[in-house]
This record gives sequence, C-alpha cells and structure tokens, in this order.
Amino acid sequence: MTELKNDRLIRALLREPVDQTPIWVMRQAGRYLPEYKATRAQAGSFMDLCRNAELACEVTMQPLRRYDLDAAILFSDILTIPDAMGLGLYFTEGEGPRFERPIRTAADVKALAAPDPEGELRYVMDAVRTIHRELDGAVPLIGFSGSPWTLATYMIEGGSSKEFSNTKGMLYTEPQLLHQVLQVLADSVTSYLNAQIQAGAQAVMIFDTWGGALTTEAYKEFSLAYMQQIVNQLIREQDGQRIPVVMFTKGGGQWLELQARTGCDAVGLDWTIDIGSARARVGDRLALQGNMDPGVLYGSPEKIQEEVKRILASYGAHNGHVFNLGHGVHQHIDPENVKVLVDSVHEFSKPYHD
Amino acid sequence: MTELKNDRLIRALLREPVDQTPIWVMRQAGRYLPEYKATRAQAGSFMDLCRNAELACEVTMQPLRRYDLDAAILFSDILTIPDAMGLGLYFTEGEGPRFERPIRTAADVKALAAPDPEGELRYVMDAVRTIHRELDGAVPLIGFSGSPWTLATYMIEGGSSKEFSNTKGMLYTEPQLLHQVLQVLADSVTSYLNAQIQAGAQAVMIFDTWGGALTTEAYKEFSLAYMQQIVNQLIREQDGQRIPVVMFTKGGGQWLELQARTGCDAVGLDWTIDIGSARARVGDRLALQGNMDPGVLYGSPEKIQEEVKRILASYGAHNGHVFNLGHGVHQHIDPENVKVLVDSVHEFSKPYHD
Repeated sequence: MTELKNDRLIRALLREPVDQTPIWVMRQAGRYLPEYKATRAQAGSFMDLCRNAELACEVTMQPLRRYDLDAAILFSDILTIPDAMGLGLYFTEGEGPRFERPIRTAADVKALAAPDPEGELRYVMDAVRTIHRELDGAVPLIGFSGSPWTLATYMIEGGSSKEFSNTKGMLYTEPQLLHQVLQVLADSVTSYLNAQIQAGAQAVMIFDTWGGALTTEAYKEFSLAYMQQIVNQLIREQDGQRIPVVMFTKGGGQWLELQARTGCDAVGLDWTIDIGSARARVGDRLALQGNMDPGVLYGSPEKIQEEVKRILASYGAHNGHVFNLGHGVHQHIDPENVKVLVDSVHEFSKPYHD
Repeated sequence: MTELKNDRLIRALLREPVDQTPIWVMRQAGRYLPEYKATRAQAGSFMDLCRNAELACEVTMQPLRRYDLDAAILFSDILTIPDAMGLGLYFTEGEGPRFERPIRTAADVKALAAPDPEGELRYVMDAVRTIHRELDGAVPLIGFSGSPWTLATYMIEGGSSKEFSNTKGMLYTEPQLLHQVLQVLADSVTSYLNAQIQAGAQAVMIFDTWGGALTTEAYKEFSLAYMQQIVNQLIREQDGQRIPVVMFTKGGGQWLELQARTGCDAVGLDWTIDIGSARARVGDRLALQGNMDPGVLYGSPEKIQEEVKRILASYGAHNGHVFNLGHGVHQHIDPENVKVLVDSVHEFSKPYHD
C-alpha cells in the first residue's frame, strides 16, 4: 500500500498530535469552481459525471490543485444507493433530486434489496480506485454515504422536502414499515462503505442531512440506531491502517453525547453550535470536525481570518480537531476565499500544536 | 374591558396554577380546514384575506368552533411589515412569498422607514379589533410578528431561502448595513405589537423562524439583541392585565438560556428538544410553549394520545406549560386528529394540576 505523504487528517481524526489543524471542505469539488463547471458540461448530466470514473476523479482532484487541502473526498452523489435499488433518480432544475418511483406501500418496501457495491454500484468503486491511484498517497481519500434515515426521506418523499409529510406519516402510522426500509438501507450503506474502504477510501463519513428533523426519541430510534449498526459493522482497519469514521447529523448538536457513544471516531458539527462547548461536552472521547458557517466565505479575507481564529481558539490546544465548514460550500462564493480559509487554518493553528 | 371566560393561556404563560394545560396550535386557522379553503376562495388572494377584517376574523374563529382551544391567534401574514414598507409582497404557487423590490444596497436600506401601525398597517389593527369583539372574552387573542432577523432574511433574499446567501453576504461583509435594517425592523415590530396590544391582543408572540440558521455569536448579535430591544419596549400591562410575551426561535433550543434572560414570559420550543430537559435548564424562570412534532398528526388517535402523554409527563407537574406543536400544522392532516390532540391535552393533563 502507498504511504500517506500528508496524514494530518487521519491523525487528527484519531486524536493524535499534528503540526497544523487539517482542513477539508464539504463540497470542495463543486459549482463554485469554474473548472468543475467545465468538466460537468463535458460529462453531460450530473449522474453521467458520477458514473464516469475518469471525470469523477478529475473533479475530485481540482480543488487539490488550487488549495493546500488535507484530504480528498470522493466525488459522487448521496443518492447512489436508492438509484441502484431501481427508484429512478433524476434531477430537475431548481428542485434538486427526484425519484421516478418513490416508496409508499408495503409492496414497494418488500421489493427493496441491498445493491451489490461491485455490481450496480461498481461505478462508485471504480471512481474510488481511480482517485486513490491518482492521489498516490498525497492526502487521504474520504469515502461517504448518506445515512439510512436521510436516504429514506428522499426515497419516501420522492425528492427533497421541507415537512417530510410522507416519511413522518409512515413513521407515525406504520413505524415497522419504516424500520424495514431503514434496515435494508443500513445493510446497503454498510456494504457500500466497506467496499469503498476496500477500493481505497482511507476514512469514511456518514451524512445524516435530515436527522435534525426528528424528535430526540425518533432520532434515536429511526436515525441513530441504524448509524450505530453501520459503525459496528464497518471495516476499521485496512492494510494495517486504522480507518476513521465520521458521523454528521446536520442540526444534531444537541445529540452530541448520543453520537459520541456510537464508537465513531469523530462527529461533524454544523455552525449553529459553539465548537468549544461541544468539545467540553465530549472531552477526549472523540474528534470533532467543523464548523465554520459557509456564509462566512462571502466575507472579506479579514473576516474569514477572524472567524478561523475564533473557531481555533474556541476548540483550543487539544488534539482531535479537523477544520471544515458546517455544511457544503455555497455555489456563488469567490474561489479565492477558499484559499484564504485553507491557508488561515494552517497558519493560525500552529500555536495550538506546539 | 371584557373579563376572560377562559384565562388558562394567560395564567400558564405567567406560571400561575391552571386546572388543565392550555393548548393552541400554530397555524390553527389554515389550509387543513375545508372551511378555511372556502373563505380563502371567497376572499381572492391570500393578502386579500389578510386585508379584510371580517374575513380574517372569520378564519380566526373557524378552529375555535371545531376545537376546545384555549386561545385564538390573529390571522395575518408574517410579512405585513416589509409589505407596508413598500417592498411589494406577492405569492407564487409552490415558491411561497416573494418581494418585488428586495433590499440589497445602502440606498435601499436608507429608504426604509417604520410603517405606521394605524396607517399602512391599519388593516391588521382592524382585524385585531374585529376578532377581539367577536371573541367577547371567550379565550384570549394572541397577536404576533416575525422577528427582525427573520423579516430581514425575506427582505434581503426577496423571498424564502435555504442558504440565505444575500443575507449572510451582508452579515459578513457589511454588518453595519444589516444592523441598520434590523434597527428599523425592531422599531417597526415594537410599534406593530404595541398597537396590536392596544387594539385588543392579550398576549403576543415573536416568531424567529430563521434564527436557527445563525452561529451562536451571530444569533446573539443579529437576532436576539433586537428581540431583546422589542421585549424591553413592549406594553406589558393593558387595562390592568399583564400581557405575556412569547419568544420562539425555530432550531434555537440550544440558546434557551439566552432567550430566557431577555425577560420574555415564555419561550416556544420546536420538537427537536426534549421539553423536560428544557424545563430543567430554565427552571421556574419562565413558561415553555410546545412542542409536539406536527408530523404526529399523521398518526392514529392512539399515537397522538401517546405522544401527548409523553410530552406532558416530560414537562411534569409544574406550572408554566402551554401545549402546542413545535411548528405550524401541516396542510394534509385530518382535521379530526386536531380534535384528538386538543381533547387529549385537556384530559391527560388534569393529574398534573391537582
């Protein structure tokens, strides 16, 4: 296996000492970069881009050429699993992802089966293999999946949602049916992430984008329990290297202690929580990833530096901080501001690692 | 003045003993009711309905005829103030409210002036007076306004938003300009709510729908500080009666202690927080309003009763609980389920008030 030239991300996720706080950026490969838009246009549709290993590799590498990032993240979509289950993923302008055949009835649920990661989802593993080869150990490659609950909301609503009427309807009228959906998804996500690890992912992240739409009781039963199953069954060491797992529930700051108890290596934080208080709550039990408001990137270089300093100071001189935004980078920010962010994190974090 | 026949809401908001936990429901007058849809069709546009005091009164009264609710809430829109400022409010199918002339430049901001509550906004005060007369003391009438931050997001984005790009852009590049917008809005909301109180509102609520999109620091500076100003300047006693103030920041559960320190009488909670832990955090300092997931109303009567019991038990045998949903009632629920909710709260709460 290839030795990592920059292993700051892995070390920080495992709460080992580092020389500078590592940083990567959610959606670092994306529409704010003109070179991404050019490759996207060349590929055809968004899913054509995801399905083409060479082009998915190209867009994954683009932000690494511009910025001194400490990790690459697989370029793919959060909804590859339901698409591979045959729900018919497509994208509409302005409305985001949609499914042709949403899941509504017991018969729909019964027909669901976990896709083969090296079958219907082989294109994702091919992308992981291609990117891993191309990176050649420069920085670690992060693999990812949506959480079972988050995937279920898209599958049951047929797309994005504000109120989650159909999913909440199922949750409060036929919870056992929802549990069946979530169980198939937990099995699918487990084999999907394990296949990414075997294909070359050196850390993995579970995105629970919509866990924050639940009550505490429902979060435990319908989201966290299935992420727990996944964490329990993930490959945690590959080729002699520990594979860290990051769990991220947007809007889930108040459930930090619950997430910390799952045995994941790190929890991702959105920007609504103070990272210093978060650290005080979990102590040295695990690493934290986050948590600058993506909106700060609309600000001046001085404002960005100020916010970076504030977050670094709030976390303090402890191991286990991976800097990131609290959610994906917005489309209309100036790419130069991401450079300011990345360089500021490295520069201003040094004193915390003496 | 008219004596209240049912003063449970006022008593609970002031943490006085009651015989049963009072309940009202956010958006209790709305599209889930067929009689609302009929009146809405008769009125013309949504704003035509808001501007017609008789019809606004009619839709306000409709849920009280069906359910044993402990309060009426003024039927109006959250965006009446920016509309009265001349921004040109209109509604598009599926996309919600829009403004013809959003606020983007220093010149736009400079042109903003607090509207006269008995001038451009007289139609709202006429609705309050009409409803107050029609209620004849049956239950208290709640007046309301959006918070300055929440109104500012609509004014600056020109409508609803997910990322608040323009507002965050102003916040992080020209914070002083945003402060000017918020100051005009704080002044406007104060006079608007005070005029509602003088017109007959017996409690008022400030809806900070989008405060949860901010960092803790930004919430304090750009949302809470202006709600604090409003609380400081509200009429707190009218005709010898105390006028309780409820503050509600959706997604603001982690800032409960900050909200509690403003001197408001109650804080509204969305469903993502456990109301028992919330009460433990604020003790007897103020009342709490909430917090059932609106999605529970898709469930069976038994499921609704179970959730009502769980929330009542979580709050426990203390004064100061007003039952409500954690956000507005959804459009596609069965009106019969709201009856189950209201009756369950009254029935199952009695033992907590012995």
